[in-house]
Amino acid sequence: MNAPWIIYRPEIKVLDCTIRDGGLVNDHLFGDRFVQAIYKTCIEAGVDTMEIGYKNSDQFFSPTKNGPWKFCNEDDIRRIVDDNPSEMSIACMIDAGKSNWKKDVLPKEKSVVDVIRVAFYVYQVPEAIEMIEDAFQKGYEVSANLMAISTVNDPEIDQTLDILSQSSVSTIVVVDSYGSLIPEQTEYLTKKFLKYAKPNGKEVGIHAHNNQQLAFANSIEAIRQGATRVDASIGGLGRGAGNCPMELMLGFLRNPKFKLRPIYKCLEDQFLLLKCQMEWGPYPEYMITGQKNQHPRAAIQARESEVRNQFTEFFDKISQEIS
Amino acid sequence: MNAPWIIYRPEIKVLDCTIRDGGLVNDHLFGDRFVQAIYKTCIEAGVDTMEIGYKNSDQFFSPTKNGPWKFCNEDDIRRIVDDNPSEMSIACMIDAGKSNWKKDVLPKEKSVVDVIRVAFYVYQVPEAIEMIEDAFQKGYEVSANLMAISTVNDPEIDQTLDILSQSSVSTIVVVDSYGSLIPEQTEYLTKKFLKYAKPNGKEVGIHAHNNQQLAFANSIEAIRQGATRVDASIGGLGRGAGNCPMELMLGFLRNPKFKLRPIYKCLEDQFLLLKCQMEWGPYPEYMITGQKNQHPRAAIQARESEVRNQFTEFFDKISQEIS
Repeated sequence: MNAPWIIYRPEIKVLDCTIRDGGLVNDHLFGDRFVQAIYKTCIEAGVDTMEIGYKNSDQFFSPTKNGPWKFCNEDDIRRIVDDNPSEMSIACMIDAGKSNWKKDVLPKEKSVVDVIRVAFYVYQVPEAIEMIEDAFQKGYEVSANLMAISTVNDPEIDQTLDILSQSSVSTIVVVDSYGSLIPEQTEYLTKKFLKYAKPNGKEVGIHAHNNQQLAFANSIEAIRQGATRVDASIGGLGRGAGNCPMELMLGFLRNPKFKLRPIYKCLEDQFLLLKCQMEWGPYPEYMITGQKNQHPRAAIQARESEVRNQFTEFFDKISQEIS
Repeated sequence: MNAPWIIYRPEIKVLDCTIRDGGLVNDHLFGDRFVQAIYKTCIEAGVDTMEIGYKNSDQFFSPTKNGPWKFCNEDDIRRIVDDNPSEMSIACMIDAGKSNWKKDVLPKEKSVVDVIRVAFYVYQVPEAIEMIEDAFQKGYEVSANLMAISTVNDPEIDQTLDILSQSSVSTIVVVDSYGSLIPEQTEYLTKKFLKYAKPNGKEVGIHAHNNQQLAFANSIEAIRQGATRVDASIGGLGRGAGNCPMELMLGFLRNPKFKLRPIYKCLEDQFLLLKCQMEWGPYPEYMITGQKNQHPRAAIQARESEVRNQFTEFFDKISQEIS
């Protein structure tokens, strides 16, 4: 095939993480009207799944300082989606070490949520497996999101994938939390994930961050290598540098079921104002942490403080810390 | 090789097009102090070539409405670089159909310029060849930049490359003027360019635009396929959505001769202010023209007028025009 990009692969499914990952910028303090606008836009655009937030615990996050999408109580979700009469499924994320999943993840028959995504660092694999099996037993489709993949060494990745491929997850996601991967690395990791996932009937997904303006490119690369699940967010909204922009991903996929116009309308109606209220995107501080394979924490702190935009000082600080 | 990205290829050379392409945003009305700052930064960062502007003709561009970097008179260049005692070479671009190259390109011994880059559309190949041979005869290293490659059909690309490979150019550049390519297309084009260039001892370069946030990714892809010349600009400054950011490219290349700190310092010292005075970057209007493989002209006009940020209307307009 000389020009494979002009066709499309119908098996590729898109998850919107605008509220879930974007909420990491504003402590999930989105108003209902904004969340409803995202829900409506995703349905109109043909998005397959909307991740509406975390089901994390109020033991770990103050309910007065954090908005409802940090906890995703059933009543809060239903206030937005009602019984979700659409074809789009609803996902929530639970964090290992930060959620009271045994209690807070309801039996599926009592919830409008369809998919539980389990997020964990490599040292949390044992709890992650328990979370996965618990959610699966309760009736959910389950996804495993191994975070900060750019910091995990190869034997540990292999071991984790070996365990996950024997678990009840339907999807295993390459998560570039630090926005540090280049497409060649994404190719390497996606092939590795597929090697374990495919023979066991599981899908591979990609969740990219935009520190080096590579979130879209890494997502394309993963898809090119065989990934069939991709995360994106409207306007790229997400922690720090943000995620793969939905408006770019849907254009790339070329599946006629996806519609770009509702996304551009949402950017116009909702995001012009939001850009005045919240900050995200590939600012130099985020480039620097991405280039140096560091958590964006220091960059977020710098941009929220009086040393914002002092790129040279920040570059020196990060260079010294890791040397 | 399992991890080729940790080493570097010493033959890869970087050209800075901050002033030349950035000047398309402000009619090349940069002050001397800004141009000097870019010159100094590029030297400190280890950049191989700085493209300081166009040598276009005042018959086609008003000298009262356009700054000196549209014309690059020898005196103007020397006011910035003196005799250019650095190891970095100086380039100027000449446009087919818009330059009086016979007269305005001086014999090399009378100029501080080292490289002439000839920019042309595919219908201008005959003049481009004359321009190339003229500049070569005058003593310059010459580069051929076939613009708007995403709109040229394959037999015409092959024919052009066949002719260029027999000419006196040292480099042939893949120019994605519309910011429309995805990395798979860049792979295809780079391989084609290399097929003609390599056996004839010529290098292949890449000049990318950032409409789909893929300027860096497409540049990486071209390099991965064997390109050895790459254009970048500080802060991604360039027409419309801008170019491949220098701060990302130098980080990717990993050649110890390249230094990132001077680029971040320049972003801090020069670009925070510039961002308040000029606009460039992957705004939705530029995404839309990139996705639809259109010249950014309509997007630039929209963003400079009262319909700025009316993404839905712009999406409809472009969709209708090309259907």
